[in-house]
Amino acid sequence: MELKVQPLRIKAGKYKIVLNPEDAKELGVRSGDRVQLKDHSYLTAIVETGDMIAKGDVGVYQECCERLGKVCPLVINIVPTSKPSSISFIKKMMDNQKLTQEEIYQIIQDIVRENLTDIEMAAFVTTSYIHGMSADEIEWLTRAMIDTGEKIEFDTHPIVDKHSIGGVPGNKISLLVVPIIAANDLLIPKTSSRAITGAAGTADLMGVLAPVELSADEIKYITERVGGVIAWGGATNIAPADDKLIRSEYPLSIDPRSQLLASIIAKKGAVGADYVVIDLPTGIGTKIPTADEGKRLARDLIELGERLGISVECAMTYGASPVGRTVGPAIEVREALKVLETMQGPNSLIEKSTGLAGILLEMVGVATRGHGKELAMETLRSGKALTKLKEIIEAQGGNPNITHTDIKPGEYRGELLSPVDGYVIEFDNKRIVEIARAAGSPIDIGAGVWINKKKGELVKKGEPLITIFADKDWKLTNALKSAEKEYPMIVEGMVLEHIRPLQVL
Amino acid sequence: MELKVQPLRIKAGKYKIVLNPEDAKELGVRSGDRVQLKDHSYLTAIVETGDMIAKGDVGVYQECCERLGKVCPLVINIVPTSKPSSISFIKKMMDNQKLTQEEIYQIIQDIVRENLTDIEMAAFVTTSYIHGMSADEIEWLTRAMIDTGEKIEFDTHPIVDKHSIGGVPGNKISLLVVPIIAANDLLIPKTSSRAITGAAGTADLMGVLAPVELSADEIKYITERVGGVIAWGGATNIAPADDKLIRSEYPLSIDPRSQLLASIIAKKGAVGADYVVIDLPTGIGTKIPTADEGKRLARDLIELGERLGISVECAMTYGASPVGRTVGPAIEVREALKVLETMQGPNSLIEKSTGLAGILLEMVGVATRGHGKELAMETLRSGKALTKLKEIIEAQGGNPNITHTDIKPGEYRGELLSPVDGYVIEFDNKRIVEIARAAGSPIDIGAGVWINKKKGELVKKGEPLITIFADKDWKLTNALKSAEKEYPMIVEGMVLEHIRPLQVL
Repeated sequence: MELKVQPLRIKAGKYKIVLNPEDAKELGVRSGDRVQLKDHSYLTAIVETGDMIAKGDVGVYQECCERLGKVCPLVINIVPTSKPSSISFIKKMMDNQKLTQEEIYQIIQDIVRENLTDIEMAAFVTTSYIHGMSADEIEWLTRAMIDTGEKIEFDTHPIVDKHSIGGVPGNKISLLVVPIIAANDLLIPKTSSRAITGAAGTADLMGVLAPVELSADEIKYITERVGGVIAWGGATNIAPADDKLIRSEYPLSIDPRSQLLASIIAKKGAVGADYVVIDLPTGIGTKIPTADEGKRLARDLIELGERLGISVECAMTYGASPVGRTVGPAIEVREALKVLETMQGPNSLIEKSTGLAGILLEMVGVATRGHGKELAMETLRSGKALTKLKEIIEAQGGNPNITHTDIKPGEYRGELLSPVDGYVIEFDNKRIVEIARAAGSPIDIGAGVWINKKKGELVKKGEPLITIFADKDWKLTNALKSAEKEYPMIVEGMVLEHIRPLQVL
Repeated sequence: MELKVQPLRIKAGKYKIVLNPEDAKELGVRSGDRVQLKDHSYLTAIVETGDMIAKGDVGVYQECCERLGKVCPLVINIVPTSKPSSISFIKKMMDNQKLTQEEIYQIIQDIVRENLTDIEMAAFVTTSYIHGMSADEIEWLTRAMIDTGEKIEFDTHPIVDKHSIGGVPGNKISLLVVPIIAANDLLIPKTSSRAITGAAGTADLMGVLAPVELSADEIKYITERVGGVIAWGGATNIAPADDKLIRSEYPLSIDPRSQLLASIIAKKGAVGADYVVIDLPTGIGTKIPTADEGKRLARDLIELGERLGISVECAMTYGASPVGRTVGPAIEVREALKVLETMQGPNSLIEKSTGLAGILLEMVGVATRGHGKELAMETLRSGKALTKLKEIIEAQGGNPNITHTDIKPGEYRGELLSPVDGYVIEFDNKRIVEIARAAGSPIDIGAGVWINKKKGELVKKGEPLITIFADKDWKLTNALKSAEKEYPMIVEGMVLEHIRPLQVL
C-alpha cells in the first residue's frame, strides 16, 4: 500500500509508524503488528493505529524518518510482515519449555535492536521472573548479553573488578576499593551505574570528582595508563540489553534472578575480567533479607562466573544500616575523600572497603590468603590509595588537587530532632533513601542525608537524628515534610503516632 | 513543577504526557511513572520521556488535552504520584498468591479506565496465562468485567443466548439459530464480534444484512419488540475490559483460560441471560484439539455459569472442516439465507444450527428433552425462522425483502484446480482463512472462499478445489498466489512439492 508520509517529529524509542485504522484494516494489520517500509532500503516497523492520521497517510516517528533518509520520502510503500521469531521463543518460555542458545541469542538481539514492543518485552521479563531459567539458559543469556554489545580487550592480564548488587544506602566503597586495587598494580576498569531508585550510584559519586561518560576505548586507555577507572556504564555500549530490560522491569518492580545474574557477569565478562569480587549487602531492608538467600545467590554467581571463565568470590556484608554516615552524592564523596586523606571516618566504611579490596588482592595472589585486608589497609593508610585516586581523577579529566573540604553539601539544611531520650532501636534504609531523593538526590549533587545517629546509638531529646541537605529550598521543605511524616528511625520510648479525637469543624 | 503545554495532537489510547529527560530527572520520575496534572481538575497521566520536548515544556497527548478542556491551558503544574495499587496486585499474582475479590475488581477497573501501561497489561495477561486463576478468582474476574461495563436489564425473562468460542471457518450458524429461537417466542439479545484473525465474525455477517452498531438500549428495545437481535458487541460498552485485554493478548498470541471463561460468561451475564448454549468446535486446527480438552472447558463454563446464576450447556461440534461451503462475509450470508429460504444447502450448516437451537429450546422447556432439534428443524422448514430474520433485519434498519440471490460475491474470481484424480484426504482450516483474508475478508465483504471439495470428497484432475472471490483485482492475485504456494487441502496422490536440480545461471 502506497501512503503519504507525515513525519511525526516524536521519538518512539523504536521503529514505529501510525496508520489510519481503515488503512490498517485494508492492509490486514493491527496495532503491534509489523510492516516493511519499502523505500531505498527495507525497514521493519511496528504499527500503531490512530484516527489523527488521515486515510492514505502514514505517521512516521523520528527514528524511522532518520533511517529513511534525512528528508523523509513523500510516499512509501508498506507491506505486512511477520513477527520476529523471538516472540514464539517467549511463548515457548511461557509454556515452561527450555530455550536453546540460538533462541536466547535471538531474543536478546531483538531487544538490543529495539525490535520488540513494550508488550513483548514485558511478557519476557514477567515470564523470566515467574519461571526462571536453567543454569545453561542463564549462561547463554550472559553470553548473548556480552556478544550483542561492545567488548574491551586488554593486552595485559589479569583484569580485576568489583560489583555490588546494591540495596544499601551510602555504599561509596568503590571510591576506596578501586584506588586501593590500582595502587597495587592491578588493572580495574570499573563501570558503574547511576541511581535509578537509590540516592546515589557509584557513577553519580564519581561524577562529583570527574567526568564519567567515557567510551569503551577511553576506559581501556585510562585503565592501562593509571590502573583504574570509575566510569558510567550507561555511556558505553557494554551489555546494552541490560538497560533495555530494566526499562521493562522497573515499572513492574521486578528483578528476575536470571537477569540479575546475567547482567552482573555479562558486564564483567565484556571488559575481560579474570577476578571479580561481588558485594552482597544482606539484612532487613536490602535486596537479600536472609543469609541463606545471600549464600544461594553467591553460589549462583560463582557458578556462572566459572562457566564464563571468570573467578568470582562474594562477600556478604551488613546492609541493614547505611555504610558510613552520609547518603547523597556530594556528602558521600566528601566522607570517602576524608577517609583517603586522613583515615578519619566511619568504621563501617573503612572496614568494608578494605575487606572487599583485600579479597580481590588475595584472589589474584598479590596478598596471601588471610592477609589481603592488611595490605588494603596499608595501601589506604600510606596514602598510596589517595595518590592513585588523584591519578584516576586526572586521567578522567577532573581536578586532582581537590580535597574533601572543597566539596560542599547543599546550602539549604534542616534537622530532624529526636522527640525523646533513648537508643535508636530501628532504622529504615528505604526511608533514608526516600528523604534523600525528596531533597534532590541524585540529580542535585549537594542534596542528601547526614545520619547523626545510627542504630544502637544513644540520643538525647532535641538532638538531631538526621541532617538534610538540599540545593533547592522547596526540595528541603519536601524532604523535611517527608521525614516528619514518617521517621526513618525509632528511638526507644518515642510516640509513634498521636491519635486525637476528630476536630469539630 | 510548572511546564508549558505543547499539545501533541496524537492519540495515545491512555492519559499520557511527554517530559524532557532533564525535567523528568528533576521531578524524580521515569518513563512509565505517573504524575498528577494540577489544573482545574486533577488528572493522573503516565509519563514518557523524549528529547523532542524542550526543557520546561510538556508534550500532552490528545486524550489528556481533551480532559484538560477544549483549549489546552498554557501552563500546567505537574507533581509525581504513586502507581495504581493494581500493580502490586499483579506482582502478587506473579508470586503465585491468590487475589481477593477487591483486588481483582481494582485491576479490571484500572484496565477499563486505561490506567495501566502496555507493560503492566502485558504482565497481567502473561501471569494469567502462566499461573491461571482459581475458580473463585475467575468468578470475581467475571463479576468485575460485568460491573465495570454497561448492563441490559430486561423486564421479561427468561433471556437466552448462544455463543461460539470460534476456531472453525464458515460458522454462520447464528444467522439461523437466532431467528429459530426468536420465532419460538424467546428473547435472544445476541451480541457478537467482528473477525480479528478469522475471515468473518457473526457481526461481519449480519453487517451485510443490516446495521450492527447498536447501543445497549437499542439491543434491549429491538429484542423486546421482535425477540432477537444480532449486534456488534464492540459498539456497546458491555464488558469493555475484554477488548482491552485482547489488545495485549493478541500480540503475544495467548488466550489465558481465566479470561476466555470470564469474557464469555461476562458478556452473557451483562445482558441478563438465563440460559446459554455454547458451541465448542473441536478437532485438529481448532482451538480445542481433543475431546478431553473440550469436556474440561465445558465443565469450567458450566461451573462458572452456575456461580453467576446462568444455566449453561455446551455442544462439542466438529470443527476440523468448515461449516457449510463458504468462508467470507457475503458468500456466507448468501449460503445461510438460501437455507432459510429453501432448506437447500449443506447438511453441516443445517444440522449444526438446528442442533444448537434445539439444545436451547430444551433448556428453556419449550421443547421436551430429546425433541429440541425437531422443533428447531420445523421452525426452519416452516419458514417461521426466515420471517423472524426479516423482522430482525428490519428492526435493525436493514432491508427485509433481501433474498439470497441479491447478495453478490466479489466480481474477481479465481479457481484452485486439483492436480490429480483422488479423494480430499487432508483439509487445513487455517489455510482457508489465510486465503480468504488475502482475498480481502472480512473488510471487503465480497471476498471469500467457496469450498468446492470438502474432506472425503472425490475430485477429478482439473476440477476446482476452491473458488476465490475478491472485490479487488490485486487481492485476488495475492490470494491465488497464497493458495498455490501451499494448498489448503491434499488430494490423495498429489505431489506435494517438486524438487528440481538447481538451475544453472
